[in-house]
Amino acid sequence: MRMTGTSRGGGHGAGARDGSLLRFAHESLPQRVVFASGEAAARVRAEAERLGASRVMVVAAAADAELARAVSADLPVVLRWDEVVMHVPAEVAERARAAAAVHRADLLLSVGGGSTTGLAKAIALTHGLPIVAVPTTYAGSEATSVWGLTERARKATGVDARVLPRSVVYDATLTLSLPVPMSAASGLNALAHCVDAMWGPRADPIDRALAGEGIRALTAGLTAVVTDPAGLPGREQALYGTYLSAVAFSSAGSGLHHKICHVLGGMYDLPHAQTHAVVLPHVLAFNAPAAPEVEQRIAAAFGADSALDGLERLRRDVDAPRALRDYGVKETEIDDAVQAVLDVVPDGNPRPVRGADVRRLLRAAWRGADPRRTNTEEESRR
Amino acid sequence: MRMTGTSRGGGHGAGARDGSLLRFAHESLPQRVVFASGEAAARVRAEAERLGASRVMVVAAAADAELARAVSADLPVVLRWDEVVMHVPAEVAERARAAAAVHRADLLLSVGGGSTTGLAKAIALTHGLPIVAVPTTYAGSEATSVWGLTERARKATGVDARVLPRSVVYDATLTLSLPVPMSAASGLNALAHCVDAMWGPRADPIDRALAGEGIRALTAGLTAVVTDPAGLPGREQALYGTYLSAVAFSSAGSGLHHKICHVLGGMYDLPHAQTHAVVLPHVLAFNAPAAPEVEQRIAAAFGADSALDGLERLRRDVDAPRALRDYGVKETEIDDAVQAVLDVVPDGNPRPVRGADVRRLLRAAWRGADPRRTNTEEESRR
Repeated sequence: MRMTGTSRGGGHGAGARDGSLLRFAHESLPQRVVFASGEAAARVRAEAERLGASRVMVVAAAADAELARAVSADLPVVLRWDEVVMHVPAEVAERARAAAAVHRADLLLSVGGGSTTGLAKAIALTHGLPIVAVPTTYAGSEATSVWGLTERARKATGVDARVLPRSVVYDATLTLSLPVPMSAASGLNALAHCVDAMWGPRADPIDRALAGEGIRALTAGLTAVVTDPAGLPGREQALYGTYLSAVAFSSAGSGLHHKICHVLGGMYDLPHAQTHAVVLPHVLAFNAPAAPEVEQRIAAAFGADSALDGLERLRRDVDAPRALRDYGVKETEIDDAVQAVLDVVPDGNPRPVRGADVRRLLRAAWRGADPRRTNTEEESRR
Repeated sequence: MRMTGTSRGGGHGAGARDGSLLRFAHESLPQRVVFASGEAAARVRAEAERLGASRVMVVAAAADAELARAVSADLPVVLRWDEVVMHVPAEVAERARAAAAVHRADLLLSVGGGSTTGLAKAIALTHGLPIVAVPTTYAGSEATSVWGLTERARKATGVDARVLPRSVVYDATLTLSLPVPMSAASGLNALAHCVDAMWGPRADPIDRALAGEGIRALTAGLTAVVTDPAGLPGREQALYGTYLSAVAFSSAGSGLHHKICHVLGGMYDLPHAQTHAVVLPHVLAFNAPAAPEVEQRIAAAFGADSALDGLERLRRDVDAPRALRDYGVKETEIDDAVQAVLDVVPDGNPRPVRGADVRRLLRAAWRGADPRRTNTEEESRR
């Protein structure tokens, strides 16, 4: 009996806890996604018409003003909003919402990275306005119904159908100005969505299939971006992989990797994408031995012998950030995060997580150790 | 530069006509899908509550009355409708709609195969009632917004968001009574959705990723159903593959295979699933040489050296129907379909289709020839 479908597709996660049978609920979200490099303005206009919009509020950071003006050239724009701040401070959201109301906007066009999409979502959350999102990084927020707002240094997040952009237009020419190191870090952040989607608390076979395709596309895309920064095919593949990563991740929910990065980001004020790029291989090295089917699936998506080999090859090819110590964290501080991580270990992580595991993982990420060696040493101590 | 993602994922179809760049619009439809073998009644109840339903109309053929009664045991049922006819005759739909109105139903629960789901869709089309679908075959209608109605021997079809079931509950125990030969034919019909989703007129990389996962699951599932008809894992995998096949196919649109089968079904009154099972390898043999990246993708999904080898191995393992002549078509009649097929060749088929091609393909399907030999002979004549 050839049961490769079961062993690969339904092997691990919520579907597999009670044996080999499938047991999951998967929700597909309604969204149009358009890939059309060099055609953002025309495609955005078509989406706006489809939504019957006649009063467009453009949300774009000041640094992206020129891009946003080109993308919105054919639209009936009533307002351009350029106050965009990381983590969406509540007071910025309030000002933007008030402006949307005053100008009677009937469509939000966001052009930018995760913070820009996030601000558009904050407006949609209270005003119910549809969003057309034009992403310029690999943050992935455009494909989820998750919103976030920061008030008095605390970030609140939630899920609401109203904040999911109705349409996303990916135009790789808009990402040509994203520098290669930032492309690599942002792309590895997207890759982390794919890896965590394999074993997140609600991970199902559909998430894993999409995440596998995402890993394939991101690997091909990021490698090409580094080799040929001015070329479009690599940037397109990276955007395509980003989209899949976000769809899969938002369905599966945060896995161990994202929980750890969230703790580290909050405690040490680390840069978001770079933190993900550094921590991911250490989480993969920790979980992989306990999730062999997922490990094989990730390896196949990388086209490598093992998941970790594939990730390390990609990280080498794109010269990925390697150590948390490069971002100002002191060695004496890193152990402070152990308990905070233990407090948020997600349901159904393939491997039980003890304090000693977290300490070893964080120290390895701090010094930029080879995750393959860390894991081997650990295994040999058993 | 490793561009495996591009070559596999964006290699063929609407995205690739103008070179290696992606160019497509993909629409994800809003639907919850639940896999829970043995739990249909409880899960259907949860979905009904989620939809706020208090007056349920159960649509199920008389032959499925017992199954439907078990599935709806925990629901506030106001009406059980058992007049279900293949191809959804308009007069049956009218009667069912009138009954739904009289009984003030606020939810349609369909339990059965494609014709049953189709009748529920016909009611939803005019009444806007939500549907919870519980499929018992591999028809796949539950995951699409396509409806069909037959009036005066002509079948009209259309696409409408209202007919897409809000929730689908897959419970493999309900398919245990589907005989093995019918499981094989119905499953190969689902497999045909996957194959055509690779090169349909709107086929995009997302469709191809889902279809690849569908082929993997259907291959594993159908092989297991034949080996162990009473086992659940194979039946579950077949349902899982069916769901993916329908999602991918409804996004990509009908490819050459479905156009041919539609013509044959209309002209010779052939059984639906069996026709698909017979014709598929011949279309694959015809198109594959012109779509090498898709061919490799299908081969990989089958775990075979070539797409056709994989399909033939599966067809042998499940003892699939082999020849149209076994279903009452005369040899002298089969050429009558050539022009009708030429009239409906879909946009963007990977290979130009001439009258001689169709004649050769139909004759090979009629006599049940080995599609690998047919193709080789043809190639050698060039």
